[in-house]
Amino acid sequence: MICVLRLSHRKIRDQRVSTHVFLVARAFGADEGVLCGELDKNLLDGIAKITKVWGGNFKVRYEENWRKFLIERKKEGWKIVHLTMYGLDFEEEIKKLKNKIGKKDGKIVVVVGSQKVPPEVYQIADINIAVYNQPHSEVAALAIFLDRLVDKKTLEKKLEGGVIKIIPDRCMKKVIRVKKD
Amino acid sequence: MICVLRLSHRKIRDQRVSTHVFLVARAFGADEGVLCGELDKNLLDGIAKITKVWGGNFKVRYEENWRKFLIERKKEGWKIVHLTMYGLDFEEEIKKLKNKIGKKDGKIVVVVGSQKVPPEVYQIADINIAVYNQPHSEVAALAIFLDRLVDKKTLEKKLEGGVIKIIPDRCMKKVIRVKKD
Repeated sequence: MICVLRLSHRKIRDQRVSTHVFLVARAFGADEGVLCGELDKNLLDGIAKITKVWGGNFKVRYEENWRKFLIERKKEGWKIVHLTMYGLDFEEEIKKLKNKIGKKDGKIVVVVGSQKVPPEVYQIADINIAVYNQPHSEVAALAIFLDRLVDKKTLEKKLEGGVIKIIPDRCMKKVIRVKKD
Repeated sequence: MICVLRLSHRKIRDQRVSTHVFLVARAFGADEGVLCGELDKNLLDGIAKITKVWGGNFKVRYEENWRKFLIERKKEGWKIVHLTMYGLDFEEEIKKLKNKIGKKDGKIVVVVGSQKVPPEVYQIADINIAVYNQPHSEVAALAIFLDRLVDKKTLEKKLEGGVIKIIPDRCMKKVIRVKKD
């Protein structure tokens, strides 16, 4: 089980980046998305709609208190992984996490910050991991992290059941409707 | 040589996502960024500042006419790769591109769209490539594409020379200043 927690969302400023975070979470194999910061119903509804059309069982919801949420999840045996440019090299750490996720009861929460991450997050996290120690994007970091963590077969299974499918093409858009709405 | 072209930038709506596109371009090994759509000096200055502080020679600039730019680059022997969820599987195509980039005169332009991509882009591109045929994020697609395309040694070399370096740490931020400004 993979949960992606987005910290400190601001409704106007972060609307698009937070949407990208959850679209990436879903498309790269997370099971659950948790929005913290400002409540943003439009964002949550938009992601739910994408899941309905494009497949899978990704659930997204709002959580007011990230601290309480993370501490409770830790007690339940979830591993808390914070993605930050200051963390340890992800390529080394991902091997260990892959073992954990592969097990039946393997559960991780991936914490994705916004611009200023409270110092407490670094301490609550079991590990702080960097997708390269350079400034870039939380969307990119999450995508690369999940892409290495979740194998392709598992991913395809997780995204089954959409009503629209793309026929990959070299030079145009080709889309088919799989079944009636 | 890798150039990343961002299409149809809108100053207010796309400011953060376009910034992420260029930060990813730089951090994952592109040499050049080209902004199309609305001119956005703050964005260009911000990226230049990041390069100065964090290393490398990534150049970013504005270009009014993307069509003319792409056609000229094609004439000069650049391969135009358009990243789109409707394209061909990137894992197959990246092997061929890797050969091209490995050569001394290997040059590609990676085109990254915004919400609505003009149909002409699909035709001008030598190839349309998808980082999975699911809706997610142009930032994520670019990161994964470049991450597979550019090997780690080349990347490290490309990012040499910054004044700030991170000391990767399991549980806190550690930063050193490499040389005086």
